[in-house]
Amino acid sequence: MINVVFLGFGNVNSHLFTTLHKSNQITVKQVFNRNYIKMISPFEKIPFTDDISKVEAADVYIIGIPDDAILSFSEALSFQNKLVVHTSGGVAMNVLSSKNRRGIFYPLQTFSKQRAVDFKDVPICIEAENSNDLELLRSLGETISEKVVEISSEKRAKLHLAAVFVNNFTNYLYEIGSEILKQEDLPFNLLKPLIIETASKIETLSPQEAQTGPAKRNDVRTIEKHLHLLGDSQYRKFYELFTEELKQNYGKKL
Amino acid sequence: MINVVFLGFGNVNSHLFTTLHKSNQITVKQVFNRNYIKMISPFEKIPFTDDISKVEAADVYIIGIPDDAILSFSEALSFQNKLVVHTSGGVAMNVLSSKNRRGIFYPLQTFSKQRAVDFKDVPICIEAENSNDLELLRSLGETISEKVVEISSEKRAKLHLAAVFVNNFTNYLYEIGSEILKQEDLPFNLLKPLIIETASKIETLSPQEAQTGPAKRNDVRTIEKHLHLLGDSQYRKFYELFTEELKQNYGKKL
Repeated sequence: MINVVFLGFGNVNSHLFTTLHKSNQITVKQVFNRNYIKMISPFEKIPFTDDISKVEAADVYIIGIPDDAILSFSEALSFQNKLVVHTSGGVAMNVLSSKNRRGIFYPLQTFSKQRAVDFKDVPICIEAENSNDLELLRSLGETISEKVVEISSEKRAKLHLAAVFVNNFTNYLYEIGSEILKQEDLPFNLLKPLIIETASKIETLSPQEAQTGPAKRNDVRTIEKHLHLLGDSQYRKFYELFTEELKQNYGKKL
Repeated sequence: MINVVFLGFGNVNSHLFTTLHKSNQITVKQVFNRNYIKMISPFEKIPFTDDISKVEAADVYIIGIPDDAILSFSEALSFQNKLVVHTSGGVAMNVLSSKNRRGIFYPLQTFSKQRAVDFKDVPICIEAENSNDLELLRSLGETISEKVVEISSEKRAKLHLAAVFVNNFTNYLYEIGSEILKQEDLPFNLLKPLIIETASKIETLSPQEAQTGPAKRNDVRTIEKHLHLLGDSQYRKFYELFTEELKQNYGKKL
């Protein structure tokens, strides 16, 4: 049995809480959050505190708070020599205060309050200062995911950067698509099967193999027509940048 | 029974052929292609010709060739007053020669040779000069898809533009993610659950609701760290453009 305390209850920690709580190898001892949270059914028996001095003993403390606050928060903890991990992709392990044993428990996924996540396929990236703690984090991860991987802070930083491209920036391209359709009173639903297939394709093809479209083919007439349609829209610079890069990458220059 | 002849046999037409051939309401009378194609099992009984003067009579002729070739190809057809459609998102209906009855049969999806497509959810965008032809195209579309929609050439041009953003450009973001990981000897597989979830999220959330990440939060330290990691990489200008736009859109300026 692994005893866990959650420190902070934002998107990542609340999703982790929900899934870890289901495991019969895990006991959630307590949830701490700076602001009061009412623990609702089926979690009403989980102790909650908003007083950091009243955090209970546990095998592992999982910090889930804004990146910029991790350093000062970890220094302000009243206990020491415990295993304290954070869940952030972009923050190095050694940002945590050295008064506790440090580690990382980073689930590589996008979390929104309104949407449940199945952790089975979510890579859990772990790191720790000593091998016992690493094994404990591995056991913790394996209760929820089939993909627990040890990754250094340096590599994790690059992984997080790549995640920003394929998640945040991709989602903004969806927003652009949605806005273009809205101007024509066309429903965004029309694009959803294409969006799903674009993502599903790279399960079996590399992105290079999956690439299609006017820029790859250097289809000059279509590109000119698109630029005409875009006019001086704010989206024009995205079109130009991607099109130029794709033309260069696929070797069909003007 | 609707008799169909395919004119050209690239990605779109070969996928359309495969799915229409399965319908017992459709007879594929013939496939024409400029270059010889051996019709292999289970299609060995479908007549093939590479001689445009020997194209057989049909209810509808489906042109699937490069956009720039549609005009001259449709003018070179030896028959007239037949229903001739093309399958391109970016080309107006009136680009087709007026010597035949014109129409559009545009499946809004990304097609690669190596990957089968289930047409059930694929929007089929149709257009025709007269209502009988429109109804024939609707019947044709409904044999393979539950989403047949009439869309004008003007709206279809915008739809195609939006599709380039959410498909071609998104796929290039996947390529950037893949390249960043390759530099760290990390497997691209790590990003695939995130890519699928990013696409799946917009089934239930709008892209605006689904947006997360350092640019939306204006998390200055993480953004600076990412720019440092990117150095003078070719991907830096993508990072800067998206980040600037996201910061402005979500109203948290520096």
